[in-house]
Amino acid sequence: MKLLIKDVRVGDLIRDIFIRDGVITDISPKCGQRADRVINGRDKAALPSFINGHTHAAMTLFRGFADDMPLKQWLEEKIWVLEAKLTEEDVYWGTKLACLEMIKNGVTVFNDMYWHFESTARAAHEMGLRAIVSAVLIDMFDRRRSEEQIHKNVQLFQAAQKYGPQIRFALGPHAIYTVSGRSLEWVKEFSEENECLIHMHLCETEEELRFAEERYGVSPVRFLAGLGLLSPRFIGCHGCWLDADACEILAQTKTRLVHNPVSNLKLSVGRLFPYHLMKQHNIPYCFGTDGCSSNNHLDIIETMKFASLLAKFSTNDPTFLSAGETFDRATIVAAETFSLGDWEITEGSAADIILIDLARAEMVPNFHIYSDIVYASNGSVVDTVIAMGRVLMENRYVEGEETILREAKKRARELVER
Amino acid sequence: MKLLIKDVRVGDLIRDIFIRDGVITDISPKCGQRADRVINGRDKAALPSFINGHTHAAMTLFRGFADDMPLKQWLEEKIWVLEAKLTEEDVYWGTKLACLEMIKNGVTVFNDMYWHFESTARAAHEMGLRAIVSAVLIDMFDRRRSEEQIHKNVQLFQAAQKYGPQIRFALGPHAIYTVSGRSLEWVKEFSEENECLIHMHLCETEEELRFAEERYGVSPVRFLAGLGLLSPRFIGCHGCWLDADACEILAQTKTRLVHNPVSNLKLSVGRLFPYHLMKQHNIPYCFGTDGCSSNNHLDIIETMKFASLLAKFSTNDPTFLSAGETFDRATIVAAETFSLGDWEITEGSAADIILIDLARAEMVPNFHIYSDIVYASNGSVVDTVIAMGRVLMENRYVEGEETILREAKKRARELVER
Repeated sequence: MKLLIKDVRVGDLIRDIFIRDGVITDISPKCGQRADRVINGRDKAALPSFINGHTHAAMTLFRGFADDMPLKQWLEEKIWVLEAKLTEEDVYWGTKLACLEMIKNGVTVFNDMYWHFESTARAAHEMGLRAIVSAVLIDMFDRRRSEEQIHKNVQLFQAAQKYGPQIRFALGPHAIYTVSGRSLEWVKEFSEENECLIHMHLCETEEELRFAEERYGVSPVRFLAGLGLLSPRFIGCHGCWLDADACEILAQTKTRLVHNPVSNLKLSVGRLFPYHLMKQHNIPYCFGTDGCSSNNHLDIIETMKFASLLAKFSTNDPTFLSAGETFDRATIVAAETFSLGDWEITEGSAADIILIDLARAEMVPNFHIYSDIVYASNGSVVDTVIAMGRVLMENRYVEGEETILREAKKRARELVER
Repeated sequence: MKLLIKDVRVGDLIRDIFIRDGVITDISPKCGQRADRVINGRDKAALPSFINGHTHAAMTLFRGFADDMPLKQWLEEKIWVLEAKLTEEDVYWGTKLACLEMIKNGVTVFNDMYWHFESTARAAHEMGLRAIVSAVLIDMFDRRRSEEQIHKNVQLFQAAQKYGPQIRFALGPHAIYTVSGRSLEWVKEFSEENECLIHMHLCETEEELRFAEERYGVSPVRFLAGLGLLSPRFIGCHGCWLDADACEILAQTKTRLVHNPVSNLKLSVGRLFPYHLMKQHNIPYCFGTDGCSSNNHLDIIETMKFASLLAKFSTNDPTFLSAGETFDRATIVAAETFSLGDWEITEGSAADIILIDLARAEMVPNFHIYSDIVYASNGSVVDTVIAMGRVLMENRYVEGEETILREAKKRARELVER
């Protein structure tokens, strides 16, 4: 498959981009090569696509079903009730809807944790996205459940191979307050042996800190470090309640974090992400939207704006987490986090590219593209999305989107009635 | 002019909406009346349009020109340098761009404060928006400048009459640290005599509190109350540094506030809006985007999401500032603030209506329309905008938008080079 993007802005220049079999092979003023498909890049800027570092994709089905409620009531009376009724097909269509929404917002890779692993993997694969997929590993400190979960995860790891490199299995121990040390020790070993990423909620709430203190007598990070779980393969999500001691350990172990500012505010987790500690200890972090019950939008540009502005506010420094750095975290840093290789528009790199529509009010006068994207826009400025050399969206149209919207809506409505 | 919106969602029902000369005259299942223009409302929801409570419209020209800088350097080296070079025509095109952007985001009324009053008024009038326009009244405690400003504002008040009720003059004393007590006394009298609104920055920063304490020995609110300036005609913008004493006075005087959450974060003003005090003292507040140098996006839905989520986070209560309340503040409360009359889709009310596109990923499954708008969407879900019975946008297209984008971009680029 040969793809040509003509007359598109790359940095400050107008260029043709030629893509052969998923790799950018030529960026030049007039490339002159024949392609199977040509995309008109006029009035558009080519940029690397975004990576959503933490989500629960199928929860799009619950969007708007239960907002503005106290956490306990929300979980017990609404979310858990619906989740208990979820079928494989529900998760499949919920994930398809999430993938559609992520494509519309310029995302081509996402890191997921949810029930019904196979449905998530199948949906993401069909939609042409790369996904790191983990099941929700919860044993509630029960030995029998721990054994079941380990057995199941080994099976899923094997089953995931059929999707090839596009879908990667990850271990998804939910959190320290839902997973036993026994299971976590297995997670560590399996992760080392098979080079699997570990995707875990970490220091999201004060309750988690109290839990670790009461049960283990140390902080969550010290507990995990003690198990040897922390490494560049460990993806800790949230991290609002991390302190300096924890950050020192994260830095030493080269652990990676995913920051979910919108979810943290909406669920009132009590503390903002410690941006100053991240900088001080040079801890790599990228961004996640979290699932649609706690955000409720899979727009990573919106998430970037929240992160950058909260960083400025909470450090009392308007220069903190600049537009350029924010953009890099959602692209280059995220690509490093998930070992995706080069994530820039350069010859030889993988062709996950978005085209930004510059002919929109919010992109005028367009003094600085990163500033305009992070501070003045949202996912709707993304016109075209290319993943691994395949065009997933052009002129904001995704093939088959009508069916996905109709089926997901029907499933969500039926789920509530069921 | 007779306008018919066919088969549109109004609440939970599908209805036709008939509009005659800017007033909704019929909402019924099949209205059957002949119209000059018919809009297809299928798969769309009709809602009242939004009101942007505080902006400096023409600053769209500066969008992205100077971000991520310390406040003093930003103002002195960038913003003031450009503002000194601004011409009438620059402000006209900058405001046209702002109006275009606001229409794209479902805004039909805005409250503005900027230089070159006539350009703002003319641009807003041409674009079909209602605007409350104030000049920037600054005298820096200089008697001669105070006299000049008073003279100029009297002239502008008279000049504004030619635009009819669509454009309303307001007095715009910039802030207590830039305007003398002498000028503020005149503002009070003129506002009373002519029923003008007063549009003023209030308690945005800690510096303002320190200034009031040092110069007047009281808080900004006590100082203004002492001058008799506070009343339902007073629109105080920002208010992040208001305390309980100030809020009691604001409640007694029925003063109204505009909350600008995005700007407050971006400029690191040091404190979040005191949502709990607002609720405790039942102070009416609506939302503003602020100008494009400190936001940089005139998307009031985005602003609503920031406000609602910051309220939840800062009160540690996920039920605070619910989606419905947030929506009402951006519409009904804002309409009361600016004396715009009924602001709901009912027979007899003025026809400022937006149609929301329900056939988008983020609007599925659409359990609750207010939740979906506030938490899951942004201005790009607005498909059609009607102001005073005139269609300003249909299928996201605004007549003449290409010219506005081209001219505003050219002006902004020339301004920097000039």
